[in-house]
Amino acid sequence: MTTTNVALLGFGNVGRAFVRLLAEKRASLAGRDGLDLRLKAVLCARGGILAGEGEDVPDLAGADREGLAGHPRFERGLNPGAVLRRLKPGVFAECISSPPETGEPALGHLREALSRGWHAVTADKGPLAADAGGLREAARAAGTGFRFSAATGAALPAADIALFSLAGAEIESIQGILNGTTNFVLTRMGRGESYEEALAAARRLGIAEPDPTRDVEGLDAAVKLLILSNLVFGESRQIGDVRVRGLSAATADEARRAAAAGRKIKLLASAVRRGGRTELSVEPAVLDAGHPLFGVDGAEKGVTFFTDTMGAVTVSGGKSDPRGAAAAMLKDIILLLGSRRP
Amino acid sequence: MTTTNVALLGFGNVGRAFVRLLAEKRASLAGRDGLDLRLKAVLCARGGILAGEGEDVPDLAGADREGLAGHPRFERGLNPGAVLRRLKPGVFAECISSPPETGEPALGHLREALSRGWHAVTADKGPLAADAGGLREAARAAGTGFRFSAATGAALPAADIALFSLAGAEIESIQGILNGTTNFVLTRMGRGESYEEALAAARRLGIAEPDPTRDVEGLDAAVKLLILSNLVFGESRQIGDVRVRGLSAATADEARRAAAAGRKIKLLASAVRRGGRTELSVEPAVLDAGHPLFGVDGAEKGVTFFTDTMGAVTVSGGKSDPRGAAAAMLKDIILLLGSRRP
Repeated sequence: MTTTNVALLGFGNVGRAFVRLLAEKRASLAGRDGLDLRLKAVLCARGGILAGEGEDVPDLAGADREGLAGHPRFERGLNPGAVLRRLKPGVFAECISSPPETGEPALGHLREALSRGWHAVTADKGPLAADAGGLREAARAAGTGFRFSAATGAALPAADIALFSLAGAEIESIQGILNGTTNFVLTRMGRGESYEEALAAARRLGIAEPDPTRDVEGLDAAVKLLILSNLVFGESRQIGDVRVRGLSAATADEARRAAAAGRKIKLLASAVRRGGRTELSVEPAVLDAGHPLFGVDGAEKGVTFFTDTMGAVTVSGGKSDPRGAAAAMLKDIILLLGSRRP
Repeated sequence: MTTTNVALLGFGNVGRAFVRLLAEKRASLAGRDGLDLRLKAVLCARGGILAGEGEDVPDLAGADREGLAGHPRFERGLNPGAVLRRLKPGVFAECISSPPETGEPALGHLREALSRGWHAVTADKGPLAADAGGLREAARAAGTGFRFSAATGAALPAADIALFSLAGAEIESIQGILNGTTNFVLTRMGRGESYEEALAAARRLGIAEPDPTRDVEGLDAAVKLLILSNLVFGESRQIGDVRVRGLSAATADEARRAAAAGRKIKLLASAVRRGGRTELSVEPAVLDAGHPLFGVDGAEKGVTFFTDTMGAVTVSGGKSDPRGAAAAMLKDIILLLGSRRP
């Protein structure tokens, strides 16, 4: 049995789902993977709880952010640096929300964790958009591991396919439907609904965020594409390098016309190698029935990798709710700790 | 740079594609993965070529089976045992065709390779259907690795998803379209062709084997399902445990009726956990448009894993020709040699 400390930064929907999942999976982690994950710290922006010697953090399964901050063991001002220094290195799990331009504050915390000999996993797109290459390099230099499955589509295993399943093949281009909200809206528009009706339905079903601007303008898909493309093609492009066109009222007409012709409009994220450089775009595109992503409908996501020797490999589905993202973080931890090495 | 000996058993379509691929990928393997793979032996049923100290086997890129047997360096009667004893252990790559009931002769060769400290990769379904669990256990005991991506759908990364991407999740059931020939035939039948017309087209396009009996009767899909299910659920079921119903003349009517109702008939391979045991079946099934495998048409394949925490994850596509299978073997070698560890 391998006993490993886990320090969690972030107690929003994903962080709370992660805490619940750790408790729920304790027995199967021990039995199947020989892992005993000890949750030693839970942190949010205002502070957190650090477990003492020989104990885990108290049960937080029912708590929300206020519940954490109001807990008798909560230390105001407790920060990741202090926790990383005080605990024996294990896995630093991070799921706050940092902007893609700077990646802060997560970027600094991840760098510190890796340099102190911690493995790190993140569901936070910000630090990856800003400097995934630097973080991977920092992990290599420190002899630790760094994984970020949850940041490229929650439980959709897009990064795994690129890293493992296509080893030895040349990935020539990537196409993806990377945002569930816009795909849901487009699917409804293809069936005759207006943009407003479709978006209202997405809100009603909890698929769209209260403010869906980043989704409908294509920015969420653009960040995921950037992370995936930089990983696959070894570049350090920035979010400004992605040509982005989101949904607009005009898209509803296109969607109806496409449907009448047996086609579909999708918000297609695309990374294509051209002359040693990658062209990155997110924009509405017409797919015909033979396209590997044609059947990815509703709030589903999918990615296709086009390769030299393995043809086109498509992965789709995977829960995109907080529980799916938490499960992806847990998967990354299992892979980092080595119990499923190939 | 890691220099590793490779011994290849099997010089049919996949074996020859593997030899060509090794040559073609020499530079990218060195550059990206730090691997120098030295092809030291190529074997078929009648004998083979063993390279001497400090050399690789001579260039066989243009040779077929007769070319190998007629090569001046060919030693009649050279067998895997002799090669495995004489070379420094590296990777034993096996792509002959052994029956699923016994797995021989591949099973014995794989066991010997692993016990002598070689890693092993195989594209051969026979030894896996017979005793994949024993081979995985033998690898663990010897401290080596054993992978078999190419045996569950060539370049379709079904086993990777199960092993890596769903780590920590509970896989509750598996559904797959695992045979390209029958899927092609069913797709054509859904468009109004008769069984005979569709099969003739598959033959003409080189999709169906000259004798497609194992495909149309569902046996090829059954073996792939068995391998995947035993891997996922840790069982040692045998091929006789799979309930199999293949295509028949009657299926053409069903396919047309399904198409008229916006549905499709697929030869669905299915492994479902029920009461601590797995029910295995391959049979024609009606899928509606919401099924994750609905869009897997023509000669394509696909697998869906239904899980507790990650939802349904589907992977589809991947070249299923000899080059795709060879690429999957090469991927397995890269993963075994550790240059892409998570």
